[in-house]
Amino acid sequence: MTLIKKPVTGMKDILPKEMAVRNYVLDMIRETYASFGFSAIETPVVEHIENLLSKQGGENEKLIFKILKRGEKLDLSAPTTEEAVTDSGLRYDLTLPLARYYANHASELPSPFKALQTGSVFRADRPQRGRFRQFTQCDIDILGEASHLAEIDLILATSLVLSRLDFHHFTIRVNDRKLLKAMADKAGFPESDYEKIFIILDKMDKIGRDGVRAELLESYPENMVDSYLAQFGEEGAEGGLTEQDLALMEETGSPLPEIIRTVDAVKQGDYRVVYDPTLVRGMGYYTGPIFEIAMDEYGGSVGGGGRYDEMIGKFIGQSVPAVGFSIGFERIIMLLLERGFEVPGSAGKTAFLIEKKMPEEKLAAIWAEAMELRASGRTVDIAVMKKNKKFQKEQLAEAGYTDVREFFSRS
Amino acid sequence: MTLIKKPVTGMKDILPKEMAVRNYVLDMIRETYASFGFSAIETPVVEHIENLLSKQGGENEKLIFKILKRGEKLDLSAPTTEEAVTDSGLRYDLTLPLARYYANHASELPSPFKALQTGSVFRADRPQRGRFRQFTQCDIDILGEASHLAEIDLILATSLVLSRLDFHHFTIRVNDRKLLKAMADKAGFPESDYEKIFIILDKMDKIGRDGVRAELLESYPENMVDSYLAQFGEEGAEGGLTEQDLALMEETGSPLPEIIRTVDAVKQGDYRVVYDPTLVRGMGYYTGPIFEIAMDEYGGSVGGGGRYDEMIGKFIGQSVPAVGFSIGFERIIMLLLERGFEVPGSAGKTAFLIEKKMPEEKLAAIWAEAMELRASGRTVDIAVMKKNKKFQKEQLAEAGYTDVREFFSRS
Repeated sequence: MTLIKKPVTGMKDILPKEMAVRNYVLDMIRETYASFGFSAIETPVVEHIENLLSKQGGENEKLIFKILKRGEKLDLSAPTTEEAVTDSGLRYDLTLPLARYYANHASELPSPFKALQTGSVFRADRPQRGRFRQFTQCDIDILGEASHLAEIDLILATSLVLSRLDFHHFTIRVNDRKLLKAMADKAGFPESDYEKIFIILDKMDKIGRDGVRAELLESYPENMVDSYLAQFGEEGAEGGLTEQDLALMEETGSPLPEIIRTVDAVKQGDYRVVYDPTLVRGMGYYTGPIFEIAMDEYGGSVGGGGRYDEMIGKFIGQSVPAVGFSIGFERIIMLLLERGFEVPGSAGKTAFLIEKKMPEEKLAAIWAEAMELRASGRTVDIAVMKKNKKFQKEQLAEAGYTDVREFFSRS
Repeated sequence: MTLIKKPVTGMKDILPKEMAVRNYVLDMIRETYASFGFSAIETPVVEHIENLLSKQGGENEKLIFKILKRGEKLDLSAPTTEEAVTDSGLRYDLTLPLARYYANHASELPSPFKALQTGSVFRADRPQRGRFRQFTQCDIDILGEASHLAEIDLILATSLVLSRLDFHHFTIRVNDRKLLKAMADKAGFPESDYEKIFIILDKMDKIGRDGVRAELLESYPENMVDSYLAQFGEEGAEGGLTEQDLALMEETGSPLPEIIRTVDAVKQGDYRVVYDPTLVRGMGYYTGPIFEIAMDEYGGSVGGGGRYDEMIGKFIGQSVPAVGFSIGFERIIMLLLERGFEVPGSAGKTAFLIEKKMPEEKLAAIWAEAMELRASGRTVDIAVMKKNKKFQKEQLAEAGYTDVREFFSRS
C-alpha cells in the first residue's frame, strides 16, 4: 500500500523559504517583546474538552478537533455521543489556555505577569485560500495589571514589532466595551439585546450606516435606532476625540483618552491610533478597551485584542485583570512573502563540492577547513559533485551559495 | 461551573525560566545546523491516520492520540470502531511526516536536501516523572545522499551542538544494520528471526552477555548461540576496530571505518566515536549505519538515528537515500536545568517603577525614555509601584531586573 503524500485537508507543509521568513519574524517578535519585559511561555496544544467548550471561544467552539478517549475509557460498542468518547481537543486559540495557565501558576509568576506566546492553534474551518486549519498565533498578554499602563505597553510594543518588519501607515482602531454598552443604553435598547446589536453595528465597515440602520429597524423602533446612530457622528469621520466623545469617556471611566494621547506622544513609527466607536471585536469576553490593527496594504485586520478581566475568574472564582493582543502572524507572513521579503544573511554562503571518490586524508582536511569557516560564523555546505555540475551550481546559487569551491581527488 | 486549572494528563505548562532555556537551546540548534547548510522546515502536527498506522512507528503506533471525524462523516448512532470514527491523529515522531513531506515536495527541494525540524510530538504513554505526552523533538535529516558524507555531516554537526551547550565526554556509539544481519547470518539464525534476536541483543547493556545468552538459549541451540556471541569480542571491550571488525565491514560494504576515522580526525569537542556491535536501535526501518549518543552525566541516550533508505519509497514507490538524527531535546533541557544553567543576558535588566497617579505628560516622558533604552538593546519593564515596594524589588531582582529606577508624580 502506498502512503498518502499530501498533508491532511486544510493543513500545510512549510517549505524552507517560507520557514526562514517565519523564523525571522518569530525572532523579531520575541526580541522586541523581550525588550518590554515579556516572558515567553508555552501551554500544551491539547486542552481539556470541558475548557474548550466553556463558551469562552464563541464560534470557534464549533470548529474543535476532538481527541478520542483511549483504552478502557473508550466504549464504541453501543450508540454513543461525541461527549462520551472524547476527553480533550486541540486548542482553537491561545487565550483560553493562558487563562488556565495563569490560574494554575499565579503563585509562581511575577505580578503583573507579561506573557508572550507563539504557537499553533487549530480550527476545523472550511478550507479556503490562505486560511489553514493549523496556524500560528502570536499573543502577548498582561495579567494582573488593572491600570491602562497595560494597554499602552501592548500597543507600543506591537507597533514597534510591525515597524521593525517595515510595515507603516497602519491604523490602530480602539474602542471600549463600556462605551459600546453606554451608547446602547442611552438609546434605550434592552441590555439582553446588546450582543445582538453589536453584531449588527460591527457590519458598519461592510454595509455602511444605512445598512446598519435598516437591520436595526427590523427589530427596533425608528426613534430608538436613530438616537443610537446619532451618537456615532458623521459616517467615516475620523480624527481627534470630540467633546461628546470625551464626555462619554469621562462618564464611563474609560481610559481611552489617556491611552490615545500617550501612544501618540511616544510612538516612533508612522502609524495612527484612532477612536472608532463602531469597533466591536467578536469575543463576548472583553470587558474594557478593545483594539484592532488595520493595514492599508491588506484589506483586513492584522491583529487585535482587548481587556478581558473576567476570564481567569472562570478558573479560580475571582476575577483577575487581563489584557491581551493577538497578532495575525500568518497574515504578516503572507504580506512579507508577497512583498518578496528576503531574510538578511540568506545569501553569501559557501559550498564545497567534492569528487565522489576522495581519499580519506583529503576528505578530513576538507572537513577541517569547513569546520573552521563555520566556527567563524559562515555557512558551509559540503556536497558530492554531480555529473551535471552546471545545474548543481545554479541550484546552489539559488539557495544563496554564491561562493562555490571545488575539490578533486588528484589535485 | 469552574474550569479545569491543570493541563491535560501527562502534558505540561512551561514556565518562563524553563522556556528561556528551551528557546536558547533551540536557537543554538538552529544556528549550528544552519552553518552546516540545514534548512528549517515544518509539517503539521496532525497526520493521516493511515500513515500513522502504516507500521513505520513500531511501538509508538499504540500510543497515538486519534482525532474524531467531524460533521456528516461522523456516525456514532450505532456500534462502531476506532477506525470508522477517526481520520487523523497527532504525529508520534518527526520522521514519518518528513518522509511524507519529501515525497510530496521533492521537485521543489534541492538534492540532497538537508532538513532541520524542531516540533512537538505526542505519545499517549503512561505518565511518569520526566516523561510527557507532548514533547519537543529535534530532528536533522539528509535526504537524497547515498554516500556516508551524510552520516559524517550529521555526527559532526550534532556533536558541535552538544559541545556548544557545554556537554563533553559523551560517546557516539555506531553500528550498521548490515553488520547486525551479517553476524546473525554467520551464526546460522533464520532470517525471519533477526528482529527477535536483535531485540534480545539490545538488552546486552542491562542483562549482560550471560543474560543475552540465556534468553537466546530458550529458542536456539547452544552451538548457534555461542558462535553468535563469539563474534562480539570481549564483554565491555572498547577501543579501535579489530582486524575481525574491519574484515566484516569490508565484506558487507559498511562505511563505518571511514565514518569513524573521519569524525575522529576532524572532531573539535572532547567526545568519542565508538563501534558497538551490540547497538540495535529499535526501529525496524533502519537499513544501514545507526548511531546513538550516550552521555556520562545521564544514564541513557540523548539522541540517536541512522540510515533509512526505504521509508520514502512507501510514499512514492521508489527508494530514496535518507539518514537522520533525532536529538533528545527534552533530556538536554532537563540536564541543563539540573545543572542550574543560566541563559546569557537574563540579568542586568532595567525596571521603571512609577507612582499610580502619574500626570499624563510625565508618563509620556517616562515612556519615551524607556523606548530609547529599548532601542539600544536594553530590556525595560514599566510597572506601577506597589505598596510593598521592598517585596516588589526583590521579585524584580529575582527576574534579572538589577537596575530599578523610581518615578514619582511630584518630583
